[in-house]
Amino acid sequence: MEKMRANIFYGKNDIRVEEVERPHAGVGEAVIRITLTTICGTDLHILRGEYPVKPGLIIGHEPVGVIAELGAGVIGYAIGDRVLVGAITPCGQCRACLSGQLSQCGHGGGYEAIGGWRFGNTINGAQAEYLLVPNAQANLAKIPDELSDEQVVLLADIASTGFGGAESGSICIGDAVVVFAQGPIGLCATAGAKLMGATLVIGIDGDDSRLAMGKRMGADVTLDYRAVDVPAEVQRLTGGGADVAIEALGTQETFESALRCLRPGGTLSSLGVYSGKLQIPYEAFAAGLGDQRIVTTLCPGGKERMRRLMEVVKHGRVDFTPLLTHTFPLENISDAYELFGGRTDGVLKVAIKP
Amino acid sequence: MEKMRANIFYGKNDIRVEEVERPHAGVGEAVIRITLTTICGTDLHILRGEYPVKPGLIIGHEPVGVIAELGAGVIGYAIGDRVLVGAITPCGQCRACLSGQLSQCGHGGGYEAIGGWRFGNTINGAQAEYLLVPNAQANLAKIPDELSDEQVVLLADIASTGFGGAESGSICIGDAVVVFAQGPIGLCATAGAKLMGATLVIGIDGDDSRLAMGKRMGADVTLDYRAVDVPAEVQRLTGGGADVAIEALGTQETFESALRCLRPGGTLSSLGVYSGKLQIPYEAFAAGLGDQRIVTTLCPGGKERMRRLMEVVKHGRVDFTPLLTHTFPLENISDAYELFGGRTDGVLKVAIKP
Amino acid sequence: MEKMRANIFYGKNDIRVEEVERPHAGVGEAVIRITLTTICGTDLHILRGEYPVKPGLIIGHEPVGVIAELGAGVIGYAIGDRVLVGAITPCGQCRACLSGQLSQCGHGGGYEAIGGWRFGNTINGAQAEYLLVPNAQANLAKIPDELSDEQVVLLADIASTGFGGAESGSICIGDAVVVFAQGPIGLCATAGAKLMGATLVIGIDGDDSRLAMGKRMGADVTLDYRAVDVPAEVQRLTGGGADVAIEALGTQETFESALRCLRPGGTLSSLGVYSGKLQIPYEAFAAGLGDQRIVTTLCPGGKERMRRLMEVVKHGRVDFTPLLTHTFPLENISDAYELFGGRTDGVLKVAIKP
Amino acid sequence: MEKMRANIFYGKNDIRVEEVERPHAGVGEAVIRITLTTICGTDLHILRGEYPVKPGLIIGHEPVGVIAELGAGVIGYAIGDRVLVGAITPCGQCRACLSGQLSQCGHGGGYEAIGGWRFGNTINGAQAEYLLVPNAQANLAKIPDELSDEQVVLLADIASTGFGGAESGSICIGDAVVVFAQGPIGLCATAGAKLMGATLVIGIDGDDSRLAMGKRMGADVTLDYRAVDVPAEVQRLTGGGADVAIEALGTQETFESALRCLRPGGTLSSLGVYSGKLQIPYEAFAAGLGDQRIVTTLCPGGKERMRRLMEVVKHGRVDFTPLLTHTFPLENISDAYELFGGRTDGVLKVAIKP
Repeated sequence: MEKMRANIFYGKNDIRVEEVERPHAGVGEAVIRITLTTICGTDLHILRGEYPVKPGLIIGHEPVGVIAELGAGVIGYAIGDRVLVGAITPCGQCRACLSGQLSQCGHGGGYEAIGGWRFGNTINGAQAEYLLVPNAQANLAKIPDELSDEQVVLLADIASTGFGGAESGSICIGDAVVVFAQGPIGLCATAGAKLMGATLVIGIDGDDSRLAMGKRMGADVTLDYRAVDVPAEVQRLTGGGADVAIEALGTQETFESALRCLRPGGTLSSLGVYSGKLQIPYEAFAAGLGDQRIVTTLCPGGKERMRRLMEVVKHGRVDFTPLLTHTFPLENISDAYELFGGRTDGVLKVAIKP
Repeated sequence: MEKMRANIFYGKNDIRVEEVERPHAGVGEAVIRITLTTICGTDLHILRGEYPVKPGLIIGHEPVGVIAELGAGVIGYAIGDRVLVGAITPCGQCRACLSGQLSQCGHGGGYEAIGGWRFGNTINGAQAEYLLVPNAQANLAKIPDELSDEQVVLLADIASTGFGGAESGSICIGDAVVVFAQGPIGLCATAGAKLMGATLVIGIDGDDSRLAMGKRMGADVTLDYRAVDVPAEVQRLTGGGADVAIEALGTQETFESALRCLRPGGTLSSLGVYSGKLQIPYEAFAAGLGDQRIVTTLCPGGKERMRRLMEVVKHGRVDFTPLLTHTFPLENISDAYELFGGRTDGVLKVAIKP
Repeated sequence: MEKMRANIFYGKNDIRVEEVERPHAGVGEAVIRITLTTICGTDLHILRGEYPVKPGLIIGHEPVGVIAELGAGVIGYAIGDRVLVGAITPCGQCRACLSGQLSQCGHGGGYEAIGGWRFGNTINGAQAEYLLVPNAQANLAKIPDELSDEQVVLLADIASTGFGGAESGSICIGDAVVVFAQGPIGLCATAGAKLMGATLVIGIDGDDSRLAMGKRMGADVTLDYRAVDVPAEVQRLTGGGADVAIEALGTQETFESALRCLRPGGTLSSLGVYSGKLQIPYEAFAAGLGDQRIVTTLCPGGKERMRRLMEVVKHGRVDFTPLLTHTFPLENISDAYELFGGRTDGVLKVAIKP
Repeated sequence: MEKMRANIFYGKNDIRVEEVERPHAGVGEAVIRITLTTICGTDLHILRGEYPVKPGLIIGHEPVGVIAELGAGVIGYAIGDRVLVGAITPCGQCRACLSGQLSQCGHGGGYEAIGGWRFGNTINGAQAEYLLVPNAQANLAKIPDELSDEQVVLLADIASTGFGGAESGSICIGDAVVVFAQGPIGLCATAGAKLMGATLVIGIDGDDSRLAMGKRMGADVTLDYRAVDVPAEVQRLTGGGADVAIEALGTQETFESALRCLRPGGTLSSLGVYSGKLQIPYEAFAAGLGDQRIVTTLCPGGKERMRRLMEVVKHGRVDFTPLLTHTFPLENISDAYELFGGRTDGVLKVAIKP
């Protein structure tokens, strides 16, 4: 039996790189040999016991690799093709997918909440030497030769999610957009807002290096919440409120501030993962009469999404590699988790190489 | 000086029908002689001191009448024309209006929260013999001869609001829609959902006569929240959750139940006026990852909106007259408020005749 | 080797019911035993040599049946399940499908023009005892017990197409809509326009029985093009032009009339299959400055589409059975083609029973 | 009586700068003293007798100026304010405007085809010392101090039109877009497509300097139709067709080529002004079954549109001044027309200073 190395979650604060069985491709599946992956903030939640997954699961959901096996029924690919696979792997054939809601995929049946997120959540994930890809036909996105693994690995989750926040906000030419905060996803939302034609993009954070990176990714203005009353300053800069506010952290404070930054009729596009009850402040919500919208977005996936994001990189519209601040081998992934969790050394995203 | 009778708000639980000066039309304005109006739930909030307006204000915002005066610059109308005017009177010429957000009208300038609602809120209203209509060009909707005052008076607010809830929910053919509750606005939302092609419309209330009226207005099924666990039953009836839930009451309970009724990726279309903080339940919100949308809608206004709603009535698509359960002369409007506020005698909406 | 009877196209005006090999289900496929099917106008084009298909092909694309075989990888179904399959069978996993354009399905790869239409076009079709269904997971729609085969068979193509024309026109509450003509697809477009909230639906045809059926399917007014100047009368009835015109015939005359019926900024939603060059009349197009839209729609397919249309029937919103005017056994399908092609005996659609 | 100099159209090839009465502001109107204007391709059509306007009319529709008079009912402005006014001046208060279709403005009433274009078409225009602005409240857009007249004058028409072509095409992140041709409007469409997130923008023209300017305005690739088979090359570059093709010339050839460049389900966004019948090629239109859309856009106007476009310039997203290749005093406007009409000296747009 072939073996491989993988990072396995055993319980709170207990992950270990071990040898496990290498997966094989069944009908409609593929196996890829991982060449690059990374760690997501959600993986930290899992490690800290804040998001429950089954002990024994290989975690991680941002895979770049090379096709090693192709199951029956998967056409148009060859062993050895370099591919990017999104963090969300829609089946394309359930009620949700056929309705265009790929992230709430029901695996052939109806809708399933967050059902599109399977890697490192309900099936084995990408922090390993090999990865079994379900519904491979819908999820293997060939990487153009001119793009390196490093250029595309962040498209699997954070770029897709951040851009998704801008898209769900229906940003249009001339919009003023505020983005809370400037972590990896917020930085991608900042870039996405600018890419869609927002003319005033305001990045919010409380960390100097992240504010600086916010400007680099496209913010016209950055505000440090430690120093200014953010909603008041946004109201002033925009002459009456932002058209769209993107929440990319997942706290009551940022959610509430985002709402307070909006003009009447504005849109709060929420990307954060919240814990516990969220409160909507009465007056910022105009008692329900302000024609506001609160929209949420789970990372869009599927091979067409990945293809479009690779086009963004290929044509030089956005370069995500500055966000990839550190690199670790898979064997030392615990050190990577520690650095990433501790937010030291200016870390934004960590590359993991099996 | 010409005088008229009008219903004036003086303070909490203090309204009086008195003689006041009759208004005259300035530039861009018109004066209409009111032939029929009604009382809105919002007027009750004003009377109870729950929504602040300036003492001395004539209240009411649902006017049907006849043009008595036309100010300079208003064209295409004649004295004597029968007109319907929406509760919301957009200027058509500010940043909000030119962006299509007529209800957040800034009166020639930028956005103003709830700025489109002026009658009986920031300027004198319709519970009077005469009414000054601002931005008359944008707001006087001629009534087709074949329609009576009674057939159109409810279009000014509740039909426009209720339909707006269905429209903001982007209801499409084959949708399952649940409507909380079956008061005047919820009943109109029920009719609107059906009119847009929803195939399973579920009306929720705890009052037998309102549930019966829900069926009459188009609900396929009605549920009494006193008898069933509404979210569980909606999940069962819809096979996994409603596509759209319309909240038409304005309480934490109905807001939360509405969210619990949704399928992943569903839309909560909120029409209620809330008091105090609203809480979003963590799990029903899928921690922010469910691709759900929460949209709010203030009554759409302007003459084109009123024209379209009159087309609905004229072509027999919906008949709103069953909702007009009682009639009072303006002089006895206090009795009408008492009946309407007490929800006795099966009252839904009360017609007021000056 | 098992055999079955099937209607095979051999060349212009040459179809024959013969015995052929029964198909078997490969990976991701299913075989259904056809219990009811019908003849489409497109089949007539094939028979007349106006639309090229390969000689030897079994034609027909509107299947209702019972699952006889399930290939590897198809889950959630059982042999014996009653199913409806759309005329268009998207794979759900190509670039087009993942972008929501299921009818231009590229079968796992990119876009392919009209690629979603396979039955009786590029693979064997439904006028047979058994049918091989590709991408079965995305295309088998279970029929609710309370619905008969006759109630759902027209959903596979004409109802989906007709409704699609209304949907692509973005019909909204209060719209005036004109539909050219009142054949099977136009009648479904008429029903769809009304279902979406159009308040004035005008059906056009030159055949009395079809005009009468137009009223039955929801037209408020019908116009006989032999008797009236249709664009002039539509302009008069609508007070300045229809919001949406649906073309459901496929001729230069109806296309041009449809454009002439529109108000500035209106939408021409085209369903017809045209032959040769189409001309856009200069003045009706406002020289390109009228903010008009011309949208085309190929029949939407996939199991979720079929589920939604079955909901329409199940909840009594539209009854399509009046359009099923005649029934023939498969053996006599030539007679059915003759009747259908000749448009005699008030024929609209013909049911075929294997 | 105060006089002013103005450029008057007297008939084919007959324009003269003469002294005429200076206009004065009535109710809802304003008069601006023109500080900068320009000549549009449409003005050339007028001069050549190809587009009919009444002899004696002052032509031109791209005004930048200073408020000289304010009529009754116009609020929030002061004499001396610098303003930009769009080529299209919606009333904001008719059926079309209240429906969001500002360019088909009916001046207080219903829809009127191309009704929003009044300057130099149905009322006196901007090639003069003073200009009467109708519906001033909806149309006077204050110019931020930091922007020069030269930076904003092209926003009145060509930038608004060109961007409108991109917007009507619903361009989204990752789209491939082809733009025919690279004249003033096509160049703005190129910039607009890129601004909205298109990742591959292909500019088409047959003039080297315009192709070069296309690259400067954002095209990734330019194609010279004299040298390559454009549809074939676009199909090759895009791997199966452009998502959106923008037609910005107004000929049968470019319209047809644009359609041939599209992928199935793509959108042809048409900005050109056509003469005579347009033909839709059968096969490029997939016989009407390709799910394609043909959308047309007349220059969007109104003060909010101008505000948004000025934001684009203010935040450095697009610089239009390279398109302003020449400057002439009003007295010599005939020379400017000759240069502009002759397309000599690399002329793109000509600034006119009264």
